[in-house]
Amino acid sequence: MTTTRVRMSKESRREQLLDIGVQLLATRPLEELSIELLADEAGISRGLLYHYFGNKQDFHIAVVRRAVADIYAITAPSDHDDPVEQLLASLGAYVDYVVDNHEGYVSLVRAAAGGNEELRGIYEDARRALTDRVFDRADGLEALGVTDSPATRLLARGWAALVEDTVLEWIREPSGLTRDQLLERLAAVLPVLIVAPA
Amino acid sequence: MTTTRVRMSKESRREQLLDIGVQLLATRPLEELSIELLADEAGISRGLLYHYFGNKQDFHIAVVRRAVADIYAITAPSDHDDPVEQLLASLGAYVDYVVDNHEGYVSLVRAAAGGNEELRGIYEDARRALTDRVFDRADGLEALGVTDSPATRLLARGWAALVEDTVLEWIREPSGLTRDQLLERLAAVLPVLIVAPA
Repeated sequence: MTTTRVRMSKESRREQLLDIGVQLLATRPLEELSIELLADEAGISRGLLYHYFGNKQDFHIAVVRRAVADIYAITAPSDHDDPVEQLLASLGAYVDYVVDNHEGYVSLVRAAAGGNEELRGIYEDARRALTDRVFDRADGLEALGVTDSPATRLLARGWAALVEDTVLEWIREPSGLTRDQLLERLAAVLPVLIVAPA
Repeated sequence: MTTTRVRMSKESRREQLLDIGVQLLATRPLEELSIELLADEAGISRGLLYHYFGNKQDFHIAVVRRAVADIYAITAPSDHDDPVEQLLASLGAYVDYVVDNHEGYVSLVRAAAGGNEELRGIYEDARRALTDRVFDRADGLEALGVTDSPATRLLARGWAALVEDTVLEWIREPSGLTRDQLLERLAAVLPVLIVAPA
């Protein structure tokens, strides 16, 4: 019992530290996120942090996994009955996340797209999980004419690239597009990709 | 006259060397493209190549600029009257290029998305040029209901991200999608993004 309690406590402390890490990542690129910075912010020693995270790379991976889990959680399908409203709600949550965590998000995308294979793996898995979720509503999909196949899953993943790229560019320069207009255009694309042609 | 002729000859020789560089890039990542390799392939000395290209980074930049110019040229609007046929022809040329030059293309995307600012600049400029070209057909666009605005240009650029990501993933795993089906789905998305809602 004691052992379990101690282990839980260590895990829960680690989770708290990851919360801080994710907050720090929001406003700075991954390469500026150091164990020293986390130690200052959390008010504990570097030595103790190395006990939780091993080394800087492991710390980065843990923070990125947490950030990705946060994105997955906040974009979870809401309880809207209308699938379009549901999609707009998930997209809106994603856009707000990227706005609020812009620096870190951009650096994660770049690290994953660049040479870091472990980050690329986490990033690809997350994108797959996010878009595969589109096909989870087994009840409603058939009525909507959506085909669940490797082809439509491939196209849904491409849609995620459109969303990410457009949102990042829109944050840089909104180009006269309101948030709602952006969401509507992006949402309107998905059926074109995954609904079987008549 | 002599000076001009000699200069032209140097430029044209440089162009020939870039042709070879682009061919070498087709089947290997950018980081494996060396001046030594080009020297072997072209049958001339490394010293002479440094005379043409300065250093490895300048050589890479020159090859990438050439590859990007090739993509721009082969995807030029054909003389189809029907804008959908025209779009399918340009998209088809792009897909075939990426299939034929896969290794180099992927490495270019990664280098641009990763940390190389100069390559990122060339890549972004190329994407902008490719998608801005969508709005060049001033005659036909209005009849199609296309709005030329900063917002639709932003969305067209997002469409390019969808195209690139989907094509690269499709090459890795076609997922039961034929080339024509792929082209049709990708082409069908563009109007959703750039045609004003009724």
